[in-house]
Amino acid sequence: MKIQDLATPALVVDAAALEHNLATMAEALPGKRLRPHVKAHKSTALARLQTGRGHTAFTCATIREVEGMAAAGLGDDLLLANEVTDATRLGVIHDARVTVAVDSPETVEAAARGGVAEVLVDVNVGLPRCGCDPGDAGRIAEFARARGLGVRGVMGYEGHVVGEESHATRAEQTEAAMARLLVAHGDVGGDVVSAGGTGTYALNTWATEIQAGSYLLMDSAYAALEDLPFREALCVLATVIHVGPKWAVADAGLKALSMDHGDPRVEGGDVWFYSDEHVTFRPAGGVVVGDRVRVRLAHVDPTVAKHERLHVVDGDDVIETYAVDLRGW
Amino acid sequence: MKIQDLATPALVVDAAALEHNLATMAEALPGKRLRPHVKAHKSTALARLQTGRGHTAFTCATIREVEGMAAAGLGDDLLLANEVTDATRLGVIHDARVTVAVDSPETVEAAARGGVAEVLVDVNVGLPRCGCDPGDAGRIAEFARARGLGVRGVMGYEGHVVGEESHATRAEQTEAAMARLLVAHGDVGGDVVSAGGTGTYALNTWATEIQAGSYLLMDSAYAALEDLPFREALCVLATVIHVGPKWAVADAGLKALSMDHGDPRVEGGDVWFYSDEHVTFRPAGGVVVGDRVRVRLAHVDPTVAKHERLHVVDGDDVIETYAVDLRGW
Repeated sequence: MKIQDLATPALVVDAAALEHNLATMAEALPGKRLRPHVKAHKSTALARLQTGRGHTAFTCATIREVEGMAAAGLGDDLLLANEVTDATRLGVIHDARVTVAVDSPETVEAAARGGVAEVLVDVNVGLPRCGCDPGDAGRIAEFARARGLGVRGVMGYEGHVVGEESHATRAEQTEAAMARLLVAHGDVGGDVVSAGGTGTYALNTWATEIQAGSYLLMDSAYAALEDLPFREALCVLATVIHVGPKWAVADAGLKALSMDHGDPRVEGGDVWFYSDEHVTFRPAGGVVVGDRVRVRLAHVDPTVAKHERLHVVDGDDVIETYAVDLRGW
Repeated sequence: MKIQDLATPALVVDAAALEHNLATMAEALPGKRLRPHVKAHKSTALARLQTGRGHTAFTCATIREVEGMAAAGLGDDLLLANEVTDATRLGVIHDARVTVAVDSPETVEAAARGGVAEVLVDVNVGLPRCGCDPGDAGRIAEFARARGLGVRGVMGYEGHVVGEESHATRAEQTEAAMARLLVAHGDVGGDVVSAGGTGTYALNTWATEIQAGSYLLMDSAYAALEDLPFREALCVLATVIHVGPKWAVADAGLKALSMDHGDPRVEGGDVWFYSDEHVTFRPAGGVVVGDRVRVRLAHVDPTVAKHERLHVVDGDDVIETYAVDLRGW
């Protein structure tokens, strides 16, 4: 199949960039030093490529992702790095090792009630989101053990740091965040200190495993960090459906692209605005109806989640089509 | 089923508001005076409710929507109000009447080549997007007829007008936009003058049919127009998964909500920020882990498209669960 034959809008992944990103990360963080986050690509096929490079433990953001990974036979070691108040669907997964994050008595109770066997204590390391205070981590671990749960260690996501542009500042802030996590780890025990993201994968030397996900497909928000060696592999392919004297319109809009983290960019054009199914842009050169344009993404994760499949391309050839099969909740 | 039993994030529709919106519109624009736009809800079940009120002709934004409506037996009169450069999938639909918008020789050719029988000439009425210049409409219709296509009339979406806050200005601008469309109609001929949206449904007295979609579920962008009689029926239900001393976190984020047209609002809270799967907010009153919160939407269409199903609720009872079965392309 040729790229010209794809119905648009379509998610397109450059094969060479994908290979580069896989190889670069596998060399930097071999085997279980990386726990790839599947939320970035939501595809068991891409997860299988990561397993092929030696990464057999995965991070998930939703129960659906855990279910899908287990059903695909990729359940060696699945961490749901998120709190849930109903773990019933996790408890009935028997063909995978499932660990869930807890940060409160209520989420410990939910894990125990739902039949999950193991937990990590999620610690707030500076991002105002989930995670307990480091000083509470030991007590939560104790409560979890009393409820019969295995406590594997701690996790703490330095999400307030991963996008910091300056390498030096990012390194400093990562160290400060991990100092909080290590205090908690001292109280909690266990083998696992899980943290990190694409922006800190090389800086975070305190965690035993790094939860990076975006490195595989990348986006322009992360590409703006100049010290990262990963390449932008993903774009949305669109078809020009209208050309006027002042503007052109292509068939990728708000339903095919995510608008958080800044607007997507049309290659060879200045974007005027997006509608549900359209982007109106001023083309730099001549375009005609039927031309294909590439839209570069500011934020991969929510964009991928809007599509049913992604196509791996080598030049004009579509060499693989993978389902985005971990969508929904 | 009770609302407490829903896995979150979940799309929830208030049954009374839905009924109010259905009834109000059916009275204002009975039967084929309304050609409901399915892009707003992407659900054949909701389309069937609209058919139950007498609206049997529908507007679609994507080929997938046309296919899905035809397969569901709702294909009396389906208008794809959008340009396509490959109409093959439309041409093979034999159990529906399919009309497609054209605005250039290339899109006429695509319709003819793809085996579509009928077209509307799409006219630019002021929004910088698709649609030909009114002065070109007659020539495009002539070309379409020469290529063997039935030309049913014209369409022109006054999308630059529908969100205008002042009723008077909106009325004035609608008239100006429709003046452009009627000029084109004079040259094109045919029975159909298709235009309008939720914001102009009562003002646009020139079109023979109105393409409103958002009226059914509504959103806060449209609710800000004080002359509209429709009620906000839709919200995203989320579960509080973390409560700290300064903020709380619920499980609806960028993948469950659309961020264009302004940020969604958490009822009873001030939103700090959204992440992929979370909203961090300061609750106005006391909340505990496990509480449910409602997130109100700025823009219905791209939000609905992120979900597989929607639940119609009456108080705490879930009375229907409908598939959002027209997603994708």
